[in-house]
Amino acid sequence: MVNTVGSEPSLLEPQALARAEMDLAEKFIFEACTSQVAAVSLGAAHIMRAGGKRLRPLVLILVAKACGYEGSQSSARLGAAVELIHTATLVHDDVVDEADTRRGQYAVNTFFGNEASVLMGDYLVCRALRLIAEEPDLDLMREICDVIVSMCEAEVLQIAYRGDLENTFENYLTVIRNKTACLFSFTAMAGAHVAGAPSATCEAMRTFGLNVGIAFQIIDDVLDLLGEQNLLGKPTGSDLLEGKFTYPILHALREAPPGRREELRGLLSRTDQLSQEDLRSVVEMVREAGGFRAALDRAQEYTDRCLTALSEAPPGPALDALRRVVSYVVERQI
Amino acid sequence: MVNTVGSEPSLLEPQALARAEMDLAEKFIFEACTSQVAAVSLGAAHIMRAGGKRLRPLVLILVAKACGYEGSQSSARLGAAVELIHTATLVHDDVVDEADTRRGQYAVNTFFGNEASVLMGDYLVCRALRLIAEEPDLDLMREICDVIVSMCEAEVLQIAYRGDLENTFENYLTVIRNKTACLFSFTAMAGAHVAGAPSATCEAMRTFGLNVGIAFQIIDDVLDLLGEQNLLGKPTGSDLLEGKFTYPILHALREAPPGRREELRGLLSRTDQLSQEDLRSVVEMVREAGGFRAALDRAQEYTDRCLTALSEAPPGPALDALRRVVSYVVERQI
Repeated sequence: MVNTVGSEPSLLEPQALARAEMDLAEKFIFEACTSQVAAVSLGAAHIMRAGGKRLRPLVLILVAKACGYEGSQSSARLGAAVELIHTATLVHDDVVDEADTRRGQYAVNTFFGNEASVLMGDYLVCRALRLIAEEPDLDLMREICDVIVSMCEAEVLQIAYRGDLENTFENYLTVIRNKTACLFSFTAMAGAHVAGAPSATCEAMRTFGLNVGIAFQIIDDVLDLLGEQNLLGKPTGSDLLEGKFTYPILHALREAPPGRREELRGLLSRTDQLSQEDLRSVVEMVREAGGFRAALDRAQEYTDRCLTALSEAPPGPALDALRRVVSYVVERQI
Repeated sequence: MVNTVGSEPSLLEPQALARAEMDLAEKFIFEACTSQVAAVSLGAAHIMRAGGKRLRPLVLILVAKACGYEGSQSSARLGAAVELIHTATLVHDDVVDEADTRRGQYAVNTFFGNEASVLMGDYLVCRALRLIAEEPDLDLMREICDVIVSMCEAEVLQIAYRGDLENTFENYLTVIRNKTACLFSFTAMAGAHVAGAPSATCEAMRTFGLNVGIAFQIIDDVLDLLGEQNLLGKPTGSDLLEGKFTYPILHALREAPPGRREELRGLLSRTDQLSQEDLRSVVEMVREAGGFRAALDRAQEYTDRCLTALSEAPPGPALDALRRVVSYVVERQI
């Protein structure tokens, strides 16, 4: 799990292998941001420019390549679509969470206001679905609708579990599976699908995506507690301040020795009023109780499953590149 | 335009003719509200129960019937889908507009909070699209995505034009065409489409829907200025308080005599601070300048166009029922 020796994992090589298709995906994203309404174009471009590493298009394009897809249109178009959907959910989350910063930029809602943020998110999702509707396959359309429905359900569940000191690992995993991993799962499956891969391979890629997505989110949640604001672009402990109890916290709530547990419960029962000092205490108690270690071990289990499923794709440079992407995802900053 | 003599227009007869399909549409709506997450089911059911007269499913089902569709599944399913999309946009508008009441119920955002409202709107749209994806026709899917994109663009434009005393009729018509009429247009076209109507008929129904939608929105905007809160379920002048200058206002800004015009501009330049007294003054000045009359005349033009297009559907009880629906839409409460 921990990147102990050798070079820092990097996306450079995988990106180089997928350069042509990634550029095309960027063109589709740019076109989707282009509206006859100037304010919409400006808003959409601002949102998509702020956006990260294009991890999802990279995975989709590399899976397609690994499975023998020799074109570029379909994988780039679907890659653009999943990135637009992912980004739209971040925009709507900013309305939801009243986050102040994300990715080091002002969150969209503080820039545009809640009103325009809601509309921009809707706009981006529908442009994404319109791209997917270019593929001559209603099954993809049906599946992505189901995925977005699951994502909404997970976000509602997450609100319902807020501040719940008795929440379970199972509930936490259900939330992250639906809010994060299902879209990764669709992404990897769609890559195999456009390549015309046999259905066993499509299903293996689905399993790969699901498991890498779960590992990704567990690690993201660990970083939210441990990371530096300038590395992650969001304030340390932002989940905690919203009453979102992620894996390390849930572990500590179970495993901390009784006295410490009561202290922890006391702090976590008033997450809206925690000082920086309180935050540091929580992180320290979680560390003592082995919460971070347990979370990373759990992420490792999902990483192992994801690598097993991934190995069912045909060997070659694209598969090697996907393994590097997995390393990057699970080893960042830890 | 004005319902001068005879019986109050009513939806009872059209609804009776479409009873079986309307019941089935209601079943599809109920199923779309059913989620594995209890809070989502509760929220969705609350939202859809609050919802109005199911005008859009009624139009879709009656157009299909008029065009010879003898089934019920496709028209009911698509009818449910357009109603879900329409309602989802109301939910997101409530976030947008910070409205306090809508349809006599507390607006969804004051009931659930902005966070859950955004998610519930997303959920309903994706369940609707999932229903449309059941139809074996990607063109419908592509078109509805384009319609929702247009709706988002129109809402952004509407924000951009807020408080703009120099706004034009053209801009106002562009906004209402995209925010309201395009979905009506899709609705009527889809009815003809599922009936397998020839493409000239499908296009005529699209024109019917577009024009009835524009007439509907102009009248809705008149009622927002003139109506009683308890009739419309929203506060009189709510558009005005948000700086939305609709047809009657735009007319008065042009046609009022110079002294009155300055007085009107003075009031409209501080719409966020208008008292009830001020509101009454605005309504009075608009009336003096012939703004309501002009708006209703304009709505009548679109109604005439809609009826001309509608007459291209095959004659029969369903076409008669559609004419009654048009009467109902354009004669309510005026």
